[in-house]
Amino acid sequence: MPSLSLDQLHASLSDPLLGSIGFLNEVMGRYPDAISFAPGAPHPSLSSDVDIASYTERFIAHLVHDRGLTETRARRTLFEYGPSRGLINDLVAEALRRDHGMDVHSDSVVITVGAQEAMLLSLRALCAGPQDVLAVVDPCFAGISGAARLLGLPVIGIDESPSGVDLDALRQKCRAARHRGQRIRACYVAPDFSNPGGSRMPLENRRGLLELAEREDFYVLEDNAYGFTAPIAAEIPQLKALDDGQRVVHIGTFAKVCFPGARVGYVVADQQVQAAGGQRLLAHHLAALKSMVTVNTSPLGQAVIGGMLLEHGGSLAELSRRKADLYRRNLTHLAHALDRELGAMHPHIHRNRPEGGFFIRVRIPARADMNLLETSAAKYGVLWTPMSQFHLGEAGDSEMRLSCSYLTPEEIDEGVRRLTRFLKSEVLRPHR
Amino acid sequence: MPSLSLDQLHASLSDPLLGSIGFLNEVMGRYPDAISFAPGAPHPSLSSDVDIASYTERFIAHLVHDRGLTETRARRTLFEYGPSRGLINDLVAEALRRDHGMDVHSDSVVITVGAQEAMLLSLRALCAGPQDVLAVVDPCFAGISGAARLLGLPVIGIDESPSGVDLDALRQKCRAARHRGQRIRACYVAPDFSNPGGSRMPLENRRGLLELAEREDFYVLEDNAYGFTAPIAAEIPQLKALDDGQRVVHIGTFAKVCFPGARVGYVVADQQVQAAGGQRLLAHHLAALKSMVTVNTSPLGQAVIGGMLLEHGGSLAELSRRKADLYRRNLTHLAHALDRELGAMHPHIHRNRPEGGFFIRVRIPARADMNLLETSAAKYGVLWTPMSQFHLGEAGDSEMRLSCSYLTPEEIDEGVRRLTRFLKSEVLRPHR
Repeated sequence: MPSLSLDQLHASLSDPLLGSIGFLNEVMGRYPDAISFAPGAPHPSLSSDVDIASYTERFIAHLVHDRGLTETRARRTLFEYGPSRGLINDLVAEALRRDHGMDVHSDSVVITVGAQEAMLLSLRALCAGPQDVLAVVDPCFAGISGAARLLGLPVIGIDESPSGVDLDALRQKCRAARHRGQRIRACYVAPDFSNPGGSRMPLENRRGLLELAEREDFYVLEDNAYGFTAPIAAEIPQLKALDDGQRVVHIGTFAKVCFPGARVGYVVADQQVQAAGGQRLLAHHLAALKSMVTVNTSPLGQAVIGGMLLEHGGSLAELSRRKADLYRRNLTHLAHALDRELGAMHPHIHRNRPEGGFFIRVRIPARADMNLLETSAAKYGVLWTPMSQFHLGEAGDSEMRLSCSYLTPEEIDEGVRRLTRFLKSEVLRPHR
Repeated sequence: MPSLSLDQLHASLSDPLLGSIGFLNEVMGRYPDAISFAPGAPHPSLSSDVDIASYTERFIAHLVHDRGLTETRARRTLFEYGPSRGLINDLVAEALRRDHGMDVHSDSVVITVGAQEAMLLSLRALCAGPQDVLAVVDPCFAGISGAARLLGLPVIGIDESPSGVDLDALRQKCRAARHRGQRIRACYVAPDFSNPGGSRMPLENRRGLLELAEREDFYVLEDNAYGFTAPIAAEIPQLKALDDGQRVVHIGTFAKVCFPGARVGYVVADQQVQAAGGQRLLAHHLAALKSMVTVNTSPLGQAVIGGMLLEHGGSLAELSRRKADLYRRNLTHLAHALDRELGAMHPHIHRNRPEGGFFIRVRIPARADMNLLETSAAKYGVLWTPMSQFHLGEAGDSEMRLSCSYLTPEEIDEGVRRLTRFLKSEVLRPHR
């Protein structure tokens, strides 16, 4: 037998990040009856009305009537390989135009296996050498720092501010990187209700980020997963919709607004890339990389999402609103339950007050680590995510992230009661 | 506008490999009416009998009856995220046991977005540092060398021999690498009817490769895409079925035997990896990496493939045989047509004589490059693939790869007639 040890595998596998995600999944698997504030997954009730067959047929009819394919040829599309760039690029571009005012040509769109693959492809294309660094708002979604680690890219954290990105700090990091012989090549932001921080960038800050990107010569990777949860009439334009200078690579997913099981996301990359043979869109190069990662996104999944887009008149606005209502109700419910149950514990317990998204952070006077999580699950039947999982350094060690997205109001109430018992017994009056 | 040029993007995007694949797709797109010997895609008639809805229902019934899920919970599985490692691992392990005599536990299996993702994950896990090198049989499938380039891994070619891998050459390359301070960490082989070479490893050579892997301390990445096309009673055990020393990481796909549009493949990695916290299977670590690439493989696709496996009694042997019959018929038909039409051109034109797989190579007395392909398509209406696309170096510049998989016998006859006219006019009596 060969002796294989972890230190002989790629360094990303020894990173505490991957280990802690694995451990979290393991804990959740061991306590299936616990109430879980851990997963940021869409609410299960929102998928039960997805009629796969009828959406698929709707997409096939579209291929026949709008694209001139024969019935046989259209049907075969589901079963064959397809172009790496995707099959529903035009429908996605149209929805982005209608729903977000983005002036996007379908050639700039690549359909990906969720937003995760879009992140990997964008990082791989943009980061060309050892001098290139990714900046992220810290704390940040583990998928982006994980993808960077898989590719061996250095990651620099910019502390999250109430307005999302502290532009002064980012400017300083850009200059410090240059002095070290590095360059910040891209900055990842989730401008609307970041996961897990919950911050939202005001319009002014968005414009400032684009100006800074221009001045300091970096690209902005914009992740739009939670924008749809904004209250009506409180939407702020996406960075891509403000992007006159082609500084933004926009990443999105249908996991939240449609459903995760399709594994369909997208990236908009309308930057022109000069080469000896002429210029091509960055999207073209992302599709070329995709052919080495997953070849193409499942036509079955694309057909269902395509059918949903068509069935809703080419816009996801109405579908989004219906789902956003549920998430806002849940977030409000969680916030009230926390205030009701934990209010008396103030000033030992603090929480943030996001206006959208799926998450509330709770700061406790103890190390919110995997050991404490294990106790919480085993003795109190309630699960949460240690915030340290989302931080690049040592920060977040006394914070937990609570997700409201996967639970009913009744489960939220019961979960918060359990959480309160847990905090009272284990954190505020710890056993000796 | 930022000025972005190709040399500022990752080096893999400037690699001629990616460029030529892109160009090939472009040429095919421009000549939709040409007869194409280019795509190694499964025959379209083989997918027309796939009843997605009924296979999906079959899988849901399995979740209810065999795994004890409620009907609601089972149905939700299709729509939600799922474990990174997959949903149908047990069914795949069972099929590998039945059909290939592989003693595989489901915990060793990770379900991937096609074989391509399995290659990327395996390379990423095994190649830990700049000293680690991938060896491939040259020529080889562009997906493996492309994945290595995306990850920045050096690739060494071992010239293909009639018995697949020249073990002496591989041994020498291992030692030469060691002398340079490198190590060959893995060797990629397709033991049955390699794409594009067409070679097949005899049993003796397979055993020899495993012994060499043990002696020189490398892993074997086995790609099993075309094994099913072997004539009945002429099967040779897969490397993984002979792998007493856990040297083989086995990669497979359902694209050929089921259908490509599901985008479902798998990797078997039963190696134990030692770490401070105890030992885990390599498959566990591949799943952790997968969470940073695609998160999980679409449950929709997995459900259809799972249903197909269940519906066929847990074995793909019968389905494979039916498809293998068609491909062998096509391969024989192509071989006869070539001999009939091109026979008189001997000794200027040579072809190889594979016993299975999708491909025949034809050597011509001219540069079989993109310019010649363009002429072939524009003036003669026939497409093929330049073999140079599959070589690491300059080799293969006067060979074309012809695929028989996507055509009917009538199309093959007409295609070979066009090819003959093209060769007579442009290659054997070229215009001056």
